[in-house]
Amino acid sequence: MSPPATSPITDQEINRRAVEWHRRYRGKLQVVSKVPVRDRHDFEIWYTPGVAAACRSIREEPGQVFEQTNRGNLVAIVSDGSRVLGLGDIGPEAGLPVMEGKALLFKCLGGVDAVPLCVRTRSEGELIRFVEQVEPSFGGINLEDIAQPKCFRVLDSLRESLSIPVWHDDQQGTATVVLAGLWNSLEVTGRSLAEARLALVGAGVANVATYRLLVAAGATPSRIVACDTRGTLHCGRDDIERQAETFPDKWRLCRESNGDGIRGSIAEALEGADVCLAFSRNGPDVIRPEWISRMARDAIVFACANPVPEVWPDAARQAGARVVATGRGDFPNQVNNSLAFPAIFRGALDVRARAITDGMSLAAARELAQAAKDRGISTERIVPSMAEWEVYPRVAAAVAEQAIAEGMASLHGTRAELEQRAAQSIRHARDTLTTLMDSGSIPSF
Amino acid sequence: MSPPATSPITDQEINRRAVEWHRRYRGKLQVVSKVPVRDRHDFEIWYTPGVAAACRSIREEPGQVFEQTNRGNLVAIVSDGSRVLGLGDIGPEAGLPVMEGKALLFKCLGGVDAVPLCVRTRSEGELIRFVEQVEPSFGGINLEDIAQPKCFRVLDSLRESLSIPVWHDDQQGTATVVLAGLWNSLEVTGRSLAEARLALVGAGVANVATYRLLVAAGATPSRIVACDTRGTLHCGRDDIERQAETFPDKWRLCRESNGDGIRGSIAEALEGADVCLAFSRNGPDVIRPEWISRMARDAIVFACANPVPEVWPDAARQAGARVVATGRGDFPNQVNNSLAFPAIFRGALDVRARAITDGMSLAAARELAQAAKDRGISTERIVPSMAEWEVYPRVAAAVAEQAIAEGMASLHGTRAELEQRAAQSIRHARDTLTTLMDSGSIPSF
Repeated sequence: MSPPATSPITDQEINRRAVEWHRRYRGKLQVVSKVPVRDRHDFEIWYTPGVAAACRSIREEPGQVFEQTNRGNLVAIVSDGSRVLGLGDIGPEAGLPVMEGKALLFKCLGGVDAVPLCVRTRSEGELIRFVEQVEPSFGGINLEDIAQPKCFRVLDSLRESLSIPVWHDDQQGTATVVLAGLWNSLEVTGRSLAEARLALVGAGVANVATYRLLVAAGATPSRIVACDTRGTLHCGRDDIERQAETFPDKWRLCRESNGDGIRGSIAEALEGADVCLAFSRNGPDVIRPEWISRMARDAIVFACANPVPEVWPDAARQAGARVVATGRGDFPNQVNNSLAFPAIFRGALDVRARAITDGMSLAAARELAQAAKDRGISTERIVPSMAEWEVYPRVAAAVAEQAIAEGMASLHGTRAELEQRAAQSIRHARDTLTTLMDSGSIPSF
Repeated sequence: MSPPATSPITDQEINRRAVEWHRRYRGKLQVVSKVPVRDRHDFEIWYTPGVAAACRSIREEPGQVFEQTNRGNLVAIVSDGSRVLGLGDIGPEAGLPVMEGKALLFKCLGGVDAVPLCVRTRSEGELIRFVEQVEPSFGGINLEDIAQPKCFRVLDSLRESLSIPVWHDDQQGTATVVLAGLWNSLEVTGRSLAEARLALVGAGVANVATYRLLVAAGATPSRIVACDTRGTLHCGRDDIERQAETFPDKWRLCRESNGDGIRGSIAEALEGADVCLAFSRNGPDVIRPEWISRMARDAIVFACANPVPEVWPDAARQAGARVVATGRGDFPNQVNNSLAFPAIFRGALDVRARAITDGMSLAAARELAQAAKDRGISTERIVPSMAEWEVYPRVAAAVAEQAIAEGMASLHGTRAELEQRAAQSIRHARDTLTTLMDSGSIPSF
């Protein structure tokens, strides 16, 4: 099992470098001042005695905490390490490198300060309580790499109880980017979301959340067929019904989708489908080319297992797929959460939104799709690449505008102002990094 | 009530500036990369797919988390906001500016990355559990501004259950710096700690902890007289005995100290005493000059209430005190925790100490006193100033060496190596800040 020759370096080489570089730099984040400290007298302002005045003014007017501390730009990346990447339940310590990496993306792409909080607990209730307790220090919460079904209930409970945005990137972030890519894939192949027949391969966190957002965006539930390891989902799936209390969204999928009552497995779900959205397990043999051949003409295949897609892109295309997307950066059409979450939080924080609603996710997906279109879309380019920096402020502004429209925002501004505000934060973060690299403060490789 | 003319700017002006500057900069901290990020391909190392290799290697060998993440240099500043500065129970949000300021000091003086975690809970058990849960993400825990008696039990419990250093600066940090200053005060006035008669004004967190460290350093318990708002502490204090379970250390003070059974109040405690250590409430009339006149010749007075000392230094000196120290930077002899905690954590982290023992605190105090002596001590200079950067690596090395000697350390080194290691981290932090200020990334005032 190795990636095809299109990959510039082998996975093995990436792994070797990763451990070597992580060791050399001893982690990826640092906490530094954002205020001038020229001599000890400045501490009389930033610490005692002056700081007491800032405390008092927050005590008198609680909203001031967003003006006088970094809370308004700070996100906690919370994980219990119970399902890290494809590695499974590796625990909080071993999950830390991922959360630090995520924080790096938050900063580089969204200008958002983020802190990994890897938490040692097996209990869903304790995890929820933990986040409720830490809320006063943060402007937003990004849940990450938490096993299902815990992750659904943790997200739902915290969205209810907290007054700051709570986001589970494995659910919402994935759904947002998939939707953006799907819209453009349908456009380049001349189809509509409402008419499309969709097969969801895998019925875990990503596809359950994607289903919800697809329907909110106008997909037709009866034309969607999902399948898990036991086969297609339909209202006769007693095994899922028995677990309806634990997995209510999955049971809802059984009841609402699959209008034709298709029985069988992946092969049957794909038969005649326009679109395959796969978030299942590492391939490359999860989806067989012959099944893709029996999809509708100009089929769209998202094979998003990481690092090895459910089917290699070349094989999928040879079998007749017109658009193929993966989660990898070394193939065209990388469906990557990093396109969304930094900008979504940027926008939410900029207007101090109380939550990130599905409407705000839809606005992000719409803007992401539009940004790709503005530079031209094709079967090889359905989403922007991570290097198109100008996309992030646009998406942030779209999210912020939607928050304002929904009455979820505490701060306001025109679309142009919002985009400028976001661009400024992101540019500042990038410039700061460049300064540190150029000066040697961050040593080069 | 205003500070004397020696203060360069008025407290009112400091307060005005503090709020203005906190608003302008919107807080004091930022989280930035410490690794190069040149283009999106670097994310293949720092994030997926490469990061999985770092995760796996930590999973296989847990100690690698200190090598491949920033955990080894990261401290959580944990507070419930239940007793912030002299402001009382102002809650977690209003406490944030203090914790951010503390993080700034950690970085500027110790090269330690620190993250404020202000926690919403009233429960001692929940606070303990919170810290236990977050342990995997941090190399050390600094408890801050937690009301008594909660703070004692939280500290004791966490020192027991965690395998990383846990420190309550209001207890241990204060005691360490007081001891350093006291040693030098006794030296310049020709006395010994064992012989000295000591009056402790206030029997709260600071003095209870100071008492413990003083005794560990060789002070004679029977020659120490403490007093709280109800008068001197002695074994006849039924009110304290009734609360012995809640305040065991305070009841221990009643039983062990005050060998002469002195009854009365502050005046009686000070009568004939060589030393007054006051951590009580804002003055300037808590300690009357006429009481100082009845202390022993060449008396030593630490009046540490903030921002207004229990007695103004001029008044204390006119009444006969030879050495006067306060918590303020605008008088000589600033007894300031910032002299200790950044270096103590630097040293503990550098050798990955499992805890910060009383022995390590004593080593820090000893080195702090010696560093002042090396540049000459006098009645106006009993401790170094915060601007003497070279002191921090020295104290860090002394702490690290003591940790090694006590078998508390996972990493080792000679005294010279330890000092060099600490100096390097601290210098790098300062240089980074300078780079950001010089480049305009941190705008000037």
